[in-house]
Amino acid sequence: MKILHASEVKEIIDSVSPEDLIRSIEESFIAYSNGSASVPPVGYLGFQDPPGDVHIKYGHIKDDPYYIIKIASGFYDNYTVGLPTSDGMMIAFDAKTGVLKCLLKDEGYLTDLRTALAGAVSAKHIGPKDIKAIGVIGTGVQARMQLEMLKLITDCREVFVWGRSKENLEKYQVEMTAKGFSIAMANSPSEVLNASNLVVTTTPSMNPLIYQREILPGTHITAMGSDAPGKQEIDHNLFSKASVVACDSKLQCMEHGESHFAIENGIIGEADLHEIGEIIMNPISRKEDDITIADLTGIATQDIKIASLVLDQIDFNP
Amino acid sequence: MKILHASEVKEIIDSVSPEDLIRSIEESFIAYSNGSASVPPVGYLGFQDPPGDVHIKYGHIKDDPYYIIKIASGFYDNYTVGLPTSDGMMIAFDAKTGVLKCLLKDEGYLTDLRTALAGAVSAKHIGPKDIKAIGVIGTGVQARMQLEMLKLITDCREVFVWGRSKENLEKYQVEMTAKGFSIAMANSPSEVLNASNLVVTTTPSMNPLIYQREILPGTHITAMGSDAPGKQEIDHNLFSKASVVACDSKLQCMEHGESHFAIENGIIGEADLHEIGEIIMNPISRKEDDITIADLTGIATQDIKIASLVLDQIDFNP
Repeated sequence: MKILHASEVKEIIDSVSPEDLIRSIEESFIAYSNGSASVPPVGYLGFQDPPGDVHIKYGHIKDDPYYIIKIASGFYDNYTVGLPTSDGMMIAFDAKTGVLKCLLKDEGYLTDLRTALAGAVSAKHIGPKDIKAIGVIGTGVQARMQLEMLKLITDCREVFVWGRSKENLEKYQVEMTAKGFSIAMANSPSEVLNASNLVVTTTPSMNPLIYQREILPGTHITAMGSDAPGKQEIDHNLFSKASVVACDSKLQCMEHGESHFAIENGIIGEADLHEIGEIIMNPISRKEDDITIADLTGIATQDIKIASLVLDQIDFNP
Repeated sequence: MKILHASEVKEIIDSVSPEDLIRSIEESFIAYSNGSASVPPVGYLGFQDPPGDVHIKYGHIKDDPYYIIKIASGFYDNYTVGLPTSDGMMIAFDAKTGVLKCLLKDEGYLTDLRTALAGAVSAKHIGPKDIKAIGVIGTGVQARMQLEMLKLITDCREVFVWGRSKENLEKYQVEMTAKGFSIAMANSPSEVLNASNLVVTTTPSMNPLIYQREILPGTHITAMGSDAPGKQEIDHNLFSKASVVACDSKLQCMEHGESHFAIENGIIGEADLHEIGEIIMNPISRKEDDITIADLTGIATQDIKIASLVLDQIDFNP
């Protein structure tokens, strides 16, 4: 068994070409949607005192050399003892023998990366051809990583960002300016929507931040913050304006994420929801003024594919 | 993170006193039945080519310092490449922070041990006071370990064993004689039933091996082979003679194991099924001629408790 620590995982994955990163996540969506992946329901273990959540995502893609089990935790009081609140690791087993091959102690980095790549893949296949400005709602890890991964699919560097904390907004501006973006701080989500035609929402909000009345023709929204029941970033009425509603997993997005609010309220039907894997296989023709939405909740095939990029570069013969 | 290899796990657990071993499994049954354990449904991943099964059992017992995730695999063609067909490991995480504490690479030994201990605990709480002879159906790992663990709760060393292969029977006799038992080889399961009042069935049989007409008053049967759907060791009609039908988990035993065949065929009702944890808390009074059954399918609290016995002896301060 090999053990890779976070720094080693990071070094390996950061050496992968942009094309291979994008392709791996495209393949993860296709594998999920075309039935070649075995992806059982996510395992969950909850804790009250102190509060914590543990998620086990696992699965196998047909003909892949490994099956992957990802264990991710969030213990929200960890800051009181000087530990990060979230952690994660992936375990790779030989799919022909069950032998434990590798422990990827990536501390959640691979999850962050595949989540950001899913945003870029969504923008590539569903978003506008001509991205004039990128809107970002939120100032956390994904607000940064989504932007960085969008570099792989667009030359646009104009960014409008909104977050609740002025201090965090300023930090974000400094940091992302250093990475080659032109960052304008918006005073409201509405200002972001007004200035951008590709918007990424990255918050853990429990209430809508962007509304139907604010959205302009030609806008694409990638909503990736609502990864658990109870969270919502987009007013469900906005779905009535969308010509395409895409999601990573119909099964998951009818249970949590953004789409289920729209379905439950009769704004769209189940048949209006299309998996990104299906769209990659059968591309849509987007008209310039179309409003589109990608609802991302995170699926195990993304974990499998991103882990595989690391595993492919490891020499398992000692 | 500590990593313990199979030999290290074995050395630690083999130093634990018989009393503590029995107590830990008693506590595991109580925790399962009294609601102090969080035990989500078992995760499963199946493989066709080559054939394999992966089970993820996980959970947490209230106030325990660790939560445990067990990953166990069976790849049935592994013998063709010189590997064991089954493997297993347990991962311990700090229940207050989610920090990965220990990888127990026990290769399934802890599972084998807790399964055998569950047989001993069943015999102790449900079986006859005066064990005259022990019957064993099967000659594999559990046929050996169940017998060894029964040493912890009875002085009886008279054993009648049956298995399909004469060669394996002879090996079993030699090996278990060396461990202090008097082993008689039976020509049929019926002969075993005729000679023993504590019978343990340990086979992966898909068809009943022991029948209603063969069972004598005063017999207790611990059935532990039927750990997955489709397996059956006991004719379901035999349940009509049982004064007590015990199981590790009502939920699991109504889905697989032995009891569900009896329930589905109307031989017993759901209310006739009692969890061993409940019986330990509210002991039954067994009459000498009573026929009793313990149906064991394996539950995560057993894994948690047996792992805890190992973890308790590790110094996590470097």
